[in-house]
Amino acid sequence: MNPETDGSAPAIASPWPARTGVSRTELDPVSFLHRTAAIHPGRTAVVDGDVRRTYAELLERVNRLASALRARGLEHLDRVAALCPNVPELLELHFGVPAAGGVLVAINVRLSADEVAYIVEHSGARVLFVDPELEELAADVPGDVERVVLGGGYERLLAEGDPGGVPSLLRDEEEPIAIDYTSGTTGKPKGVVYTYRGAYLNALGEVIEAELGHHPVYLWTLPMFHCNGWCFPWAVTAAGGTHVCLRQFDPAVVWRLIRDEGVTHYNGSPTVQTAIAGHPDAAAPGRPLTVLVAAAPPSPTLLARMEALDMRVVHVYGLTETYGPHTVCTRQDGWDELPTEERARLLARQGQGYTIADLVRVVDDEMRDVPRDAATLGEVIMRGNNVMAGYFGNDEATAQAFRGGWFHSGDLAVWHPDGSIELRDRAKDVIISGGENISSIEVEQAICAHPAVLECAVVAVPHEHWGERPKAFVTLNPGAAASEDELIAFCRERIAHFKCPDSIAFGPLPKTSTGKVQKSRLREPEWAGYERRIN
Amino acid sequence: MNPETDGSAPAIASPWPARTGVSRTELDPVSFLHRTAAIHPGRTAVVDGDVRRTYAELLERVNRLASALRARGLEHLDRVAALCPNVPELLELHFGVPAAGGVLVAINVRLSADEVAYIVEHSGARVLFVDPELEELAADVPGDVERVVLGGGYERLLAEGDPGGVPSLLRDEEEPIAIDYTSGTTGKPKGVVYTYRGAYLNALGEVIEAELGHHPVYLWTLPMFHCNGWCFPWAVTAAGGTHVCLRQFDPAVVWRLIRDEGVTHYNGSPTVQTAIAGHPDAAAPGRPLTVLVAAAPPSPTLLARMEALDMRVVHVYGLTETYGPHTVCTRQDGWDELPTEERARLLARQGQGYTIADLVRVVDDEMRDVPRDAATLGEVIMRGNNVMAGYFGNDEATAQAFRGGWFHSGDLAVWHPDGSIELRDRAKDVIISGGENISSIEVEQAICAHPAVLECAVVAVPHEHWGERPKAFVTLNPGAAASEDELIAFCRERIAHFKCPDSIAFGPLPKTSTGKVQKSRLREPEWAGYERRIN
Repeated sequence: MNPETDGSAPAIASPWPARTGVSRTELDPVSFLHRTAAIHPGRTAVVDGDVRRTYAELLERVNRLASALRARGLEHLDRVAALCPNVPELLELHFGVPAAGGVLVAINVRLSADEVAYIVEHSGARVLFVDPELEELAADVPGDVERVVLGGGYERLLAEGDPGGVPSLLRDEEEPIAIDYTSGTTGKPKGVVYTYRGAYLNALGEVIEAELGHHPVYLWTLPMFHCNGWCFPWAVTAAGGTHVCLRQFDPAVVWRLIRDEGVTHYNGSPTVQTAIAGHPDAAAPGRPLTVLVAAAPPSPTLLARMEALDMRVVHVYGLTETYGPHTVCTRQDGWDELPTEERARLLARQGQGYTIADLVRVVDDEMRDVPRDAATLGEVIMRGNNVMAGYFGNDEATAQAFRGGWFHSGDLAVWHPDGSIELRDRAKDVIISGGENISSIEVEQAICAHPAVLECAVVAVPHEHWGERPKAFVTLNPGAAASEDELIAFCRERIAHFKCPDSIAFGPLPKTSTGKVQKSRLREPEWAGYERRIN
Repeated sequence: MNPETDGSAPAIASPWPARTGVSRTELDPVSFLHRTAAIHPGRTAVVDGDVRRTYAELLERVNRLASALRARGLEHLDRVAALCPNVPELLELHFGVPAAGGVLVAINVRLSADEVAYIVEHSGARVLFVDPELEELAADVPGDVERVVLGGGYERLLAEGDPGGVPSLLRDEEEPIAIDYTSGTTGKPKGVVYTYRGAYLNALGEVIEAELGHHPVYLWTLPMFHCNGWCFPWAVTAAGGTHVCLRQFDPAVVWRLIRDEGVTHYNGSPTVQTAIAGHPDAAAPGRPLTVLVAAAPPSPTLLARMEALDMRVVHVYGLTETYGPHTVCTRQDGWDELPTEERARLLARQGQGYTIADLVRVVDDEMRDVPRDAATLGEVIMRGNNVMAGYFGNDEATAQAFRGGWFHSGDLAVWHPDGSIELRDRAKDVIISGGENISSIEVEQAICAHPAVLECAVVAVPHEHWGERPKAFVTLNPGAAASEDELIAFCRERIAHFKCPDSIAFGPLPKTSTGKVQKSRLREPEWAGYERRIN
């Protein structure tokens, strides 16, 4: 080949063909919409209550959105924020913003108003799309950010647009397509940058691992603001499927939609799965239903309940930094014949990299592979097309996360002899509650802001419904007084409610000889009887 | 983004993360083998008669092959030719040659000895892997090309190798992975260059369009030397499937393997499909069997027979220049309920681009889209990741094929209002017989070499079994004499037997006023009663 791009002189009389644009198209998830709308213009693309739109209609709305944004002055790589539940408009933004040349910032609607404001400001978003029910949550967003309220304002914007759309500005598939903010180990959320290439390949990975096939009916139980709905806005569209929207999670509605809309696939954390599988309306739909379970493995009880509902359960694992799932616990020959308890034990493993991803490693502190002995604990590290480009505006955090040329997950696992990994603990101070990340440091900072508090440590404790919940251990200032209820209420004024501790224990904190709080000593009594230290 | 590769200065204080190797892995179909061998080391990868090998064993043999080739001096981008039927060794070469840094040239075993020699010489191959049954076919290959005969010689090579393999030399996914020689419109075959990126994406495309799912059992009816078996060596491996090899096509053996090995997928032309579906042993296998039909659409009779055998028939279309299939006739809602005749009519369309491909266009002589009126004929053109890099050592042919920034297929189609295309004719002088391309010019040149022949024109005529066959129209020199049998025998000495005409008509050729042979006037009477001019 005579690479046009590397600057070296082409080889003299090389027999290899020179590079031409004929043989290369930049990988772009928006292309999936163009293809499906061309092939299946009349298929149902979106269902939202009584609203049903075909792929031709979806494409026209996306084209209008993209061209209207461009006409209002959106420039290449400008950020566009969205604060919406799983409504059709958020799906449209997943195509319309990149089609306009912008970068989508879909914000978690469970955050607090000042967290939302922080993300809008940090990302530098020029526009904020906000659901009318969430306008209060956007109260702290600076006034110079243009607001488009879903409903009237959004439809007026679309009316300005061109149904034929605008030419793509994409020149290089490694350009950013989205920023997803995540609560990591530090107090402030970090902006995880996704690229067109990564999103495209991840979407194909989801098509393959979830076996979306042709024309799935996908139910939006998973929030689209979590890792861009793990790229399912693009994956389901690639498969020519129907997006069934769901403004608010309600297991009774889930079962009605499974029945009435012929749902074939949905995703969720064990918390969501438990609510669905345990609901009185639960009934095997009489056709294949594939369910991806993420955030934590399904328990034997949950797995048995889901299998009794004829669900094909696929356990996947990943982080915001890996476009959502990075590994899948692929079923092995013979597993289906095992007793449920035993199968659940095997399915609880996180498995190995997706078909489109690199294999993950488990390493010690010096980045050497730990033995594959199912016993030695190490950190899970990843690299490849399924790993974020880095953190937005935070080179230091990127360098730290990418040290040694791999992304460090902060999750601790054992490595099985068959190559699969199994998480056991977390090196990072992160609590995963109902699939939502909570930074224990952020909670500590909120509590420490109370004048009566001297110091505070927050750890994850196991919880039957949410998987994990934060618990705070607090030392008060000498002579000061504050009740548990008072501190929790104080905390709820400052950070998202789901991040606030359910209980607080008072007393001196255990410390090392150098004065470092020994969180492990706080955690251990809470986890007595559990095999792992994550749930 | 601060692109490291485009030579421009990075933006000052850009908030976008710099590019790092952490977030990018070159797309490489060899990675599928590494992944599947890591996750399913004990699964059956290859079945060939009594030989059964696991993925761990396949990987070890591939590693040995790659390292032994490297040890014998194979350098980056050196060509490695193979003249083999569908045996496990040819599958291994699809991984071992790229793993060694070489470029695979899998040669059609139905060619003649001098055609084989031409391809080996033109590609500059340093090594030729040859099946012991095909050594005679390699008789004209120059002696300085190292020969490795499958069986003893091949196993000795593997014994030299390192079971751990060698580090990949791949630095850029747009490097060439294979050259596939095709008979085009000119006499000599042209070398179509495939890239790692194209092969990887095409393999994912096959996983998706054929719905390979997890762990398919794939029967090798399609030759691996046709477009690298349309990338199924890589696709089936990506899906963790079993490759069931088939040295020689025999419908009785096909049915035995479908039954005994639990085959779930196979591919072939209508000629192959007719032989399989019409065989006395044909019986619905009692489980899903997905069959891709290429080279020509299935007739209503064939489709009805295949559907009665519970086969899911997928009609695909492409060329060697598009890694095999580029378009798929995706089933639309309601088609399954139509009468077979009507469904066959719809399934006979070539459809539109694969999920991973760009949409194709149908254009007039000035490359303007023809109307989507299902009536106006135009040329099918393609571009994107599913189009070859170009022809090896033939910049002129590449430039001609890529004129106007698109690959010109030479196939003439109408464009339906729903966006799908349907082939009607061929602009190129190519005859497609049993899925094999025949250049009519090459046949003409062979016949014209006979001293009695003044001039000759070869056209495609419809054939019930082979789809199309070449027919020759010959004018003899004044006073000269040669019988039909004599000319056919003469032809069979010079070119592959399947390329030789079945019948010859003698007489003056119809010509334009400028003296150009009017092939259309020769063809028309032969195709009376056919709707299309291809079969």
